[in-house]
This record gives sequence, structure tokens and C-alpha cells, in this order.
Amino acid sequence: MLTSVDSKRLLLGIDGGGTKCKAVIMTYDNKVLGTGISGPANPLHGFEQATNSIVESALLALKNAKLAHVQLSELIAGVGLAGVNLPSLNTQMSAWQHPFKQLFLTTDLTIACLGAHQGNNGAVIITGTGSCGFSCIDEQEIMIGGHGFPHGDKASGAWFGLQAVKQVLLALDDLIQPTHLTALLLNKLSCNNETELVEAIVGKTATYYASIASLVFDAAEQGDKIAIKIITEGADYIHNVYRSLMLKNPTPISLIGGLAFCLKPWLDETLQKQLSEPLTAPEVGAVLFAKSKLTAQNSKQSGL
Amino acid sequence: MLTSVDSKRLLLGIDGGGTKCKAVIMTYDNKVLGTGISGPANPLHGFEQATNSIVESALLALKNAKLAHVQLSELIAGVGLAGVNLPSLNTQMSAWQHPFKQLFLTTDLTIACLGAHQGNNGAVIITGTGSCGFSCIDEQEIMIGGHGFPHGDKASGAWFGLQAVKQVLLALDDLIQPTHLTALLLNKLSCNNETELVEAIVGKTATYYASIASLVFDAAEQGDKIAIKIITEGADYIHNVYRSLMLKNPTPISLIGGLAFCLKPWLDETLQKQLSEPLTAPEVGAVLFAKSKLTAQNSKQSGL
Repeated sequence: MLTSVDSKRLLLGIDGGGTKCKAVIMTYDNKVLGTGISGPANPLHGFEQATNSIVESALLALKNAKLAHVQLSELIAGVGLAGVNLPSLNTQMSAWQHPFKQLFLTTDLTIACLGAHQGNNGAVIITGTGSCGFSCIDEQEIMIGGHGFPHGDKASGAWFGLQAVKQVLLALDDLIQPTHLTALLLNKLSCNNETELVEAIVGKTATYYASIASLVFDAAEQGDKIAIKIITEGADYIHNVYRSLMLKNPTPISLIGGLAFCLKPWLDETLQKQLSEPLTAPEVGAVLFAKSKLTAQNSKQSGL
Repeated sequence: MLTSVDSKRLLLGIDGGGTKCKAVIMTYDNKVLGTGISGPANPLHGFEQATNSIVESALLALKNAKLAHVQLSELIAGVGLAGVNLPSLNTQMSAWQHPFKQLFLTTDLTIACLGAHQGNNGAVIITGTGSCGFSCIDEQEIMIGGHGFPHGDKASGAWFGLQAVKQVLLALDDLIQPTHLTALLLNKLSCNNETELVEAIVGKTATYYASIASLVFDAAEQGDKIAIKIITEGADYIHNVYRSLMLKNPTPISLIGGLAFCLKPWLDETLQKQLSEPLTAPEVGAVLFAKSKLTAQNSKQSGL
């Protein structure tokens, strides 16, 4: 079946975040042929790493689709990347001498929103390595939060991880009552004491802190008071973002990202019911983005 | 008078922190001959920068003492550095092929405490770029906090700066009520909006955030509610550190560091009265440290 694929019609969708880069190869009629995952692709943490990850994930997706013979230069790519809402990074990424037939660049937020609502109007609250509220209604975009680590991205994986480390350090300093979270964190990071913990975390990035986040939820499930307090503060923030998005422009809102599954049960029940299930993944949203740009391009050309 | 200085008896005191490196040249009988200030000297942010800053501040202090003809190899140095409580950095700094006759290395905390209490038993709560509680009683050291940025160092300059940025971003996102602090911060960083603010702060270090801290106190003095809330949280932490130090080992405690002057009026009045005034600066404490080590060395040698 795949031998009959018309490669001129092959679309690549890329979802590049701080932790990993996901790629999907799709036909023009929205059939998924293959997927690939590579390393971090947030250009904020390095242009070269980001572009390498994009290419690597694309090649993996082609291989997964049994289309290794297809050249990257035959693919039309929709690329959603964290960080490119910042003008300087957008300029840098737009100047990339990429290997694809065509590349349509946008933010990771846009493709996540397009994916969750299958190209229709809607909004998303993303909580993965970072966090952000984002709505896209008739191409009008509104963004709430998503400013990065450590100054923003409340209720993100990086934020949960950092809060855990902060509280455990206070507990190890005898400034607050220690809980089970202390032993869990020391054990996870293979540390015996405060000094080893500090050495383990010095200079660490958002990705590292995000890798600790699940531990906060594990502790909270066992009734750990510090963990529950952290999660309650994070959940309050998600509530505020939801209210703010609805106030600015009422629309279906999905909670997505790597932490959504852990965090959802901690939101109040009314909100849980109000959230709409995401329909497809952000990398599929990237393909939908590329298709909409192609359509706009074609109608502009035919109009000339 | 200075021409008769016996250079064999010249001591150099170094206080190397995340923002600057201070040097003092003193005689063996505690007379200050000259001082010098250079750039950052926290080896955590780079070994080469730290050692360069130490040498530069020493040369400036010699020049200031009108002793430019004295070689560094004639000086006995007491060096207190941020970060060398971490074993890895201590090992690295101890292996430095330094240009001095002798070098006695310790933490910035030890020299700050020795300086504040003129070599006597005592404790300090430091709030500068970083923050820490530290007591040194009969050479037994206790450390509370001081784990670095962004995971520790509550109530430090970096912490106050980061809290301000976080709150201003929430205000710019319409998630909390904005106050005067928003305009003050945007103005200080020459930013017109949220995007410019995020671009200005991305990837910034503790030193950068500490440079914003004074703004929080300016705003609080004008009654800014967000600024007052941030300072109250910081002051609570200082109270907790004070109580914990007193509980572990009652001793005179001084509040020192670049932010001490701003923060002290926000502590409760009883605590303000309980704090003892620091007697000399950390770099003088570094000289006292070198002298005590020299004395120990000499008595060991004469005992052989």
C-alpha cells in the first residue's frame, strides 16, 4: 500500500519542545504513516541542537513509515517550536537553511491548539516541561503565561520539580517539618544528604526539574502534606488561567502536555468536566498548520 | 610610614562573591593599608573568572596601599569564596596554582562570621546576592540555607528580584491585580511590554536578579501591596533562620550583606534590637582567618 504513496503529497509535522522533538509523517488526507521521537528542540537552549533534533525525528518518522527512500527535500513541513514566540529566536529559526521542500514555522502553542481541536477554534492549557494558556480563535491568538523557567511556567513540570527541591531543602535545614517527600527526592536523585542534593541540582535546567515532577504527585497520593500544598498551588494557577481564557474568549479548552494526566484529578470537579478531551496530538496540529498555510498560498497564487 | 612596612608581614584578605571580589591589605597587627574591588569570584560560575578576580582585586589593593612594588608572592592570603562549601568546587580551588606566598581557603560564610564578630564566636545571617544563616562557635560551623539560585537563597537579592519578575509577569497576564511594581520593573529594564521583559530576563543569573532587588524595597516604601507581600515572606524566612540559629546554639547574630540595610527595617522590632552590629567586613575576617591558620601552623611546627 505504502509503495503507492505520492511523496509530493507527504507532510511532516514537528512538535519541538524542551525535552523532546516529535515528528509525524502524514498524507494530505490526514493518514498517519509514521512517527519519530528525538531529543530537545527548544532553540532557546541551542539552535544547533534544535535543528539537529528536528532532522533526526523526521528521518526516524520516515523510517518508521517504511519511507526511508524519501528525501527530506520532498517533504512539506509544519514546525511548531517552543520559544519562537520570542522575536529573536523566531528570526534565527526563520533563517535556518532547512533541508525540506518547504517549512512553515510557528509556536508549539499554535500546533498544540490546532491539534487538540483538529484545526477548529479552541484553547489549550499546556502543562509539560513548561506551562501556558493559549487560545486561537479565527487566527487571533491569546497567550497567558508560558514565560519560561525559573521566572514563569507555574504549574509546569519544571515548576513542580523546583518547588519540591525548595521544600525539601527547607526541611533538611530544619526550617519546616520534613515529610515523606524528602526521602523520596533524596532517593530518586541518589543523594544521602543536603550537600549531595545541592551538588546534584546546581545549574540544572527546566528539563531536569521536570523529570522530578512525577514524584510530587506520587507523594501527594500517599497524603504527603507538602506535596499536596504544592499541587494545590499549581492547580489554583491552572484554574486562574482557565477563568482568564474563558473571560477573554469563551471556547472549548483542553488540558494537554505530559503532566495533564497527573494534574487533572487535582482540579475541582466542575472544571474537570468543563475541559474538553484533546482530539489529536500537537505534531498532527503542525501538519494541519502546514496544510492551512499551503491552502492560503495556493488561493493567493490562483488569485493573482 | 608605608615605606617601613615589612612585606613579610603583609596579609591579604579576599571576600569573593557572586557579584564582586573585595580585597584588603593589612599588617599583622590589623592595620588596613589598602583595599580593592574587582568582578565576580564565585567559582561556581567559572574557575578562571574567579581566580582572575582574586588576582585583580589583590593588585588593586596593593596599588591603593601604595605598595604596587610588592609582589603577590610576598603576600599571605586568606580567601573566602562563595561555593567552596561544595566538595567539588573546594577541590578545584584548592588545586589552583595561586601566585601568593601562602593561601588559606575557606567559605565566604566563615570569613563573614569572623569579620562580623572580630574573630570571636558568633553567627551571621547574610543577605546579598545569595542568602545564608551561619554560625561558627569554637570552630564548629552550622549552616542554614545558602543553597544557591533558583532553588535556595530565600530572602536574598536574587530571590527578591525573581519574585518581583514572577509577580509582574502574573500581573501582565491579568492573573493578578497589577501594582506600581509593574511600571517600576518595566522602566528599570527599559521594556515596553511582557515580550520585551521575557527577552530581557531569559537565562539570567542570580547576579542579574539581585540587581533588581532594590526596586522591590522602593515600591514597598511607597505602599505597593505586592512588594510588601514579597518582603514580608522574605522577612519571615530571616526570622525562621534566626530562631533556628539561636535554638541550635545561642550566640550574637549579625545581619550582613548588601541587602541587610534595606531588609532590617522590615523585621519585627524585637528582632531588630536583638541583632548585633557587625564589627568588621568579611575581607578583614579573611585576614583574621589566615592569621589563625598561621598561628596554628607555627605552634604545630614549634611543637615538633
